Amino acid sequence: MSKFKTIALIARQHRTGVSETLASVFHHLEEKKLNVIVEENSAKLITELKTTTAPYHDLGKNADLIIVIGGDGSLLNAAKTAVLHDVPILGINRGQLGFLTDINPDDATQKIDEVLAGKFTEERRFFLEATHHGLALNDVVLLPGKDAARLIEFDIYINKTFVCSQRSDGLIVSTPTGSTAYALSGGGPIIHPRLEAIALVPMLPHTLSMRPIVVSADSHIEIIIANDSETHPHISCDGQPPAPISAGGKITIQKSAKSLRLIHPSNYEYFHTLREKLHWSTPLC
Amino acid sequence: MSKFKTIALIARQHRTGVSETLASVFHHLEEKKLNVIVEENSAKLITELKTTTAPYHDLGKNADLIIVIGGDGSLLNAAKTAVLHDVPILGINRGQLGFLTDINPDDATQKIDEVLAGKFTEERRFFLEATHHGLALNDVVLLPGKDAARLIEFDIYINKTFVCSQRSDGLIVSTPTGSTAYALSGGGPIIHPRLEAIALVPMLPHTLSMRPIVVSADSHIEIIIANDSETHPHISCDGQPPAPISAGGKITIQKSAKSLRLIHPSNYEYFHTLREKLHWSTPLC
Amino acid sequence: MSKFKTIALIARQHRTGVSETLASVFHHLEEKKLNVIVEENSAKLITELKTTTAPYHDLGKNADLIIVIGGDGSLLNAAKTAVLHDVPILGINRGQLGFLTDINPDDATQKIDEVLAGKFTEERRFFLEATHHGLALNDVVLLPGKDAARLIEFDIYINKTFVCSQRSDGLIVSTPTGSTAYALSGGGPIIHPRLEAIALVPMLPHTLSMRPIVVSADSHIEIIIANDSETHPHISCDGQPPAPISAGGKITIQKSAKSLRLIHPSNYEYFHTLREKLHWSTPLC
Amino acid sequence: MSKFKTIALIARQHRTGVSETLASVFHHLEEKKLNVIVEENSAKLITELKTTTAPYHDLGKNADLIIVIGGDGSLLNAAKTAVLHDVPILGINRGQLGFLTDINPDDATQKIDEVLAGKFTEERRFFLEATHHGLALNDVVLLPGKDAARLIEFDIYINKTFVCSQRSDGLIVSTPTGSTAYALSGGGPIIHPRLEAIALVPMLPHTLSMRPIVVSADSHIEIIIANDSETHPHISCDGQPPAPISAGGKITIQKSAKSLRLIHPSNYEYFHTLREKLHWSTPLC
Repeated sequence: MSKFKTIALIARQHRTGVSETLASVFHHLEEKKLNVIVEENSAKLITELKTTTAPYHDLGKNADLIIVIGGDGSLLNAAKTAVLHDVPILGINRGQLGFLTDINPDDATQKIDEVLAGKFTEERRFFLEATHHGLALNDVVLLPGKDAARLIEFDIYINKTFVCSQRSDGLIVSTPTGSTAYALSGGGPIIHPRLEAIALVPMLPHTLSMRPIVVSADSHIEIIIANDSETHPHISCDGQPPAPISAGGKITIQKSAKSLRLIHPSNYEYFHTLREKLHWSTPLC
Repeated sequence: MSKFKTIALIARQHRTGVSETLASVFHHLEEKKLNVIVEENSAKLITELKTTTAPYHDLGKNADLIIVIGGDGSLLNAAKTAVLHDVPILGINRGQLGFLTDINPDDATQKIDEVLAGKFTEERRFFLEATHHGLALNDVVLLPGKDAARLIEFDIYINKTFVCSQRSDGLIVSTPTGSTAYALSGGGPIIHPRLEAIALVPMLPHTLSMRPIVVSADSHIEIIIANDSETHPHISCDGQPPAPISAGGKITIQKSAKSLRLIHPSNYEYFHTLREKLHWSTPLC
Repeated sequence: MSKFKTIALIARQHRTGVSETLASVFHHLEEKKLNVIVEENSAKLITELKTTTAPYHDLGKNADLIIVIGGDGSLLNAAKTAVLHDVPILGINRGQLGFLTDINPDDATQKIDEVLAGKFTEERRFFLEATHHGLALNDVVLLPGKDAARLIEFDIYINKTFVCSQRSDGLIVSTPTGSTAYALSGGGPIIHPRLEAIALVPMLPHTLSMRPIVVSADSHIEIIIANDSETHPHISCDGQPPAPISAGGKITIQKSAKSLRLIHPSNYEYFHTLREKLHWSTPLC
Repeated sequence: MSKFKTIALIARQHRTGVSETLASVFHHLEEKKLNVIVEENSAKLITELKTTTAPYHDLGKNADLIIVIGGDGSLLNAAKTAVLHDVPILGINRGQLGFLTDINPDDATQKIDEVLAGKFTEERRFFLEATHHGLALNDVVLLPGKDAARLIEFDIYINKTFVCSQRSDGLIVSTPTGSTAYALSGGGPIIHPRLEAIALVPMLPHTLSMRPIVVSADSHIEIIIANDSETHPHISCDGQPPAPISAGGKITIQKSAKSLRLIHPSNYEYFHTLREKLHWSTPLC
């Protein structure tokens, strides 16, 4: 008998195929006599759906498992809801292969059955917490504002020790989960999700010898904007709308006490996804 | 007898030492019985200065030589004025060593005397012209707007031939002059100023195999923003205030017919400046 | 009537499918009553082949066109033969898509017919000449020897002007043709083949601010090994067996007066090949 | 009373200033009535030195502390001796600033006094162990042999799970200690020494989307050379003379049970050294 009795469904809006997969998963779960709660906006994707709905932020309250149908972005959003009640999350991908949403929609009901039968692995993915700015499963990013000049001048401290002054377009502070997202485009390394580490990846740094720095996940990171900064940098968690930081302002970033319970089907392999997404199986010539 | 009889002076505001260098250069030129025109705002930097002044954009009209006292940014601005009347420009650096303003202020009067005595080299630096967006001596940059999402989706065409679709934070289209500025921070190569080439440097590209591309300076470059772009990219020439580009919008970039006449003292060496600025003379261990 | 009356064929040894393509092309050309010369080792790939054969280095003497069946490496080799008599070369790819051998074997006879009918484009690709070390269509590479220590110390001069001292694993001096080969793995830019330029790409440079440098193709490049070098570097042209350079030794590299006539079918597009090989059409997510 | 009563000294040969520093340190320790053992080759650097000497590999047996006078390379060598008997090591730098040898020779006796007075920090730096190839404090490197072709084809497994097939010039498997050495030149991230992690840094990888990968230090890493490898790769630990690996051969790399006790003066800061060596305090302009 599965320990997942009440299952919440969230689906991404405006993407081809999502409503079909949602309907298919919903009916499959109902046939199995499970309690199903559908996020209220997602519920509109299915015609004549009679079921319990719940607002986004309440989804985790009564659920044993949250299933997200969409892309990695959808799962990043749902993660904030899931973590409130420490509910595990499972992702079914719609669109291109995702790092977090690793179930192919064609296999959705079969893989869900396996998970319900206990054939799954669960891993913890930690969040970063940027004081006053919320949680990030992927990254906390220091960004230029809408100034003509983009160069941000700031100091970095780790565990109250000065690291460096930096002049750059910004800084990506990334979890291992985020290391395959924006930080990877910025030249950061791939960090295995089992390693408790944080990467600091400079964006277009003025000083050419500046490099990504990887530190322990229990590090206390401070970014202090220069007092005479002529630009108006912003901070964004997981690509959410950026908030301005004033000259002389400080951002403190630490590993959150909260972590996400991420469910994978039992044949999941981290490096398999990497190989697929990065075309590693196809060398240049 | 020098061919430079009327000399215009422009100085950067709000930087230590600029007014001293300006005064020193001004008096030196007057002693030599040369006609001196001072840009009207720069003139305020010197107390009791009695001389001809001119507004910024008119400086080139009656001058045989423009001398800029400031940093590379000051020279980038003055270049637009100089090029209107094809007047050569000479840069005296105040602050850190510049790529364009290569005279040390301590040597200013001596180096100016050498230039007046005909001991100098003149080189042509070409501008890029972004249709409807003006001239750029360094670079035309496609930038994110103030959206939460930063990813810009666009197509690149060169000489009407499709190059690639790109999803990135933007694109730096750089001259050889600009190759040691923002484009270098973006991972672009150093391009010798004597090479007639343009570099296209992607900023944090989503596709990891995207690389800087160097093409002939006579290339016709088009950037076309995706029709369904959900972000609002901007374009900026030489770091000037960015102008928005709408979804589906097109930016056309070409080498301008105009070029800057840049004067160097006779002992100028391009690679010497590079070595100094990039600390090449000091290996890691 | 085609201007290509005598056609020489070269095929790569030990690769699946090569002998089939060779036989197919050979018989097709014979049916068209053209003179066919087969390189003497390639001839062994076809049973009972009765035709004129010639040694590798003589192939260009009597041919109007050389067709290479193999990969880019095969064409690189054949290029040295072709250029001796300024004979154009056409590449049929066996294996993965090549940058130089751009005809798919399935389309081989059709594309050859088009070329014979005059539907083709011809471009010139320049060679580098490393004094005492021969020609390179792709690159001249300074490499570590078999020492335990790999760090090579050397100076670079361009047009007799000092560029920098470098401590690195080596240097790739690349043509535009080579910019998509080894130099690209080393972090060099993609250089369009129509640009007359040479890239100097440092390999694992000790100084982190060292960057690829792109200079005019008419540059005179000198690499001088440190006098007290404790390692024994080598030089290799297009991946040929490396030759040792002694401490204090000098390598001079310049654009050769010779260039390769490279034939493409009329629908050839440089950037199409790039997109295919670098998976540019498939963004990360 | 210091817990360091018997102190062993090792000095690098053939470097300016080493013998002066060695003599100065030696006499200083003798004056303090400490037992001093000098490595037998180092002893020859001082004229008329009457003291106990010992062969290199025996140095740690009777010593409470080993002091190395030289560069990081000297300390890397001495580390293998120190670790045999778990003796701590202190480095006095001769030459350019080192990451491991962080005491300036001018401050040597003062800093040694502080250390003897108990004012020091001790940290553990782990070794990698490459089966059949020994220990590495910095890195285990897969290198090309002396073949004309340099491309090595190999598979990587981590904890018996397939990671990727790679075609490259080699692979740097680096500790945090090694992350600021060769791996940094190869594009790897800086890994803080307190993080228990290993970086796998590809050298000039054929596939452009290949990136450095950082995994937990308790990972079991296997590199398997392709069965049909046409090149003859080698393996080298900390830059020691490379040993050949045959086609189909396997290298197993794991964190060693042994670790180095590295002593720093009490004002030591990891990031201070980084800033100095990488010129971070001096932005580009």
